[in-house]
Amino acid sequence: MASLEQKASDWSGVDPKDAVAIDEINLFQKLGLQTFINLSTNFYNRVYDDEEEWFRSIFSNSNKEEAIRNQYEFFVQRMGGPNLYSQRKGHTALIGRHRTFPVTHKAAERWLHHMQQALDSTAAIDEDSKTKMINFFRHTAFFLVAGVELKNQNKGTGCKNCSNHH
Amino acid sequence: MASLEQKASDWSGVDPKDAVAIDEINLFQKLGLQTFINLSTNFYNRVYDDEEEWFRSIFSNSNKEEAIRNQYEFFVQRMGGPNLYSQRKGHTALIGRHRTFPVTHKAAERWLHHMQQALDSTAAIDEDSKTKMINFFRHTAFFLVAGVELKNQNKGTGCKNCSNHH
Repeated sequence: MASLEQKASDWSGVDPKDAVAIDEINLFQKLGLQTFINLSTNFYNRVYDDEEEWFRSIFSNSNKEEAIRNQYEFFVQRMGGPNLYSQRKGHTALIGRHRTFPVTHKAAERWLHHMQQALDSTAAIDEDSKTKMINFFRHTAFFLVAGVELKNQNKGTGCKNCSNHH
Repeated sequence: MASLEQKASDWSGVDPKDAVAIDEINLFQKLGLQTFINLSTNFYNRVYDDEEEWFRSIFSNSNKEEAIRNQYEFFVQRMGGPNLYSQRKGHTALIGRHRTFPVTHKAAERWLHHMQQALDSTAAIDEDSKTKMINFFRHTAFFLVAGVELKNQNKGTGCKNCSNHH
């Protein structure tokens, strides 16, 4: 797993220490539940209206309201609030729960583009919190790229016997 | 993912609500860090000395002290304490981090056998906390069995073209 962390840092350009700077303060207490709801609503409004069809289509099988709730409940749980996500859905299991999505480098950058815009247009989020959050998101996005790549590698190795005659 | 949760409940016999009863109180505040260190030390002492070689060997490539620390830091983080695990290692990513281990039904039961004994012999853990924790562990163990099974299914589907001539 060390290599996933390493890849996440290399690809994101975010030092692991900066990625967990969200833990230096309690962002949930600082920002409050409604700010997280607003952020995720803002984010998914952009995603579901994305002019880039290839990105928008990644979410076409997901319910938007459910996607919003999944996201802000996870953020609240990870950033110092109650375990809202796990109470409703169980383990956060980030890699496992993204296994069916095409989490490519390009998709990670598009996700981050929308999140940056969502953060910038959520007035209650101060600059310091925003910096901490974007570092966390950026590192996490590429952690998931690495996790999903690994899954696809596993697929390949499941078929050693016939690798020569494809 | 709903099916993973369903499988975890079916196989473990633990209702999802009971699996997250650990959140009804703050077990970290109630039990304290040292109790979690003692529990994980107790657990891995049993695992690394297991008379069942097939189970013991699952951990033979892992450092015991590291395994203990990974475990109690995760427990502390999940049960109301500081994010010790994520500060040091990043996302908990339970399914992703177990992907290289053979998490079978039999292995889950053996893991739970040792954890039950470890819980029973850690005096500071009261009966109510013990019940909450064993339900969480039991549900989680089979959540991981389901997650790892899915990974292996993915392997299979990586080779659709030659499924007929194996």
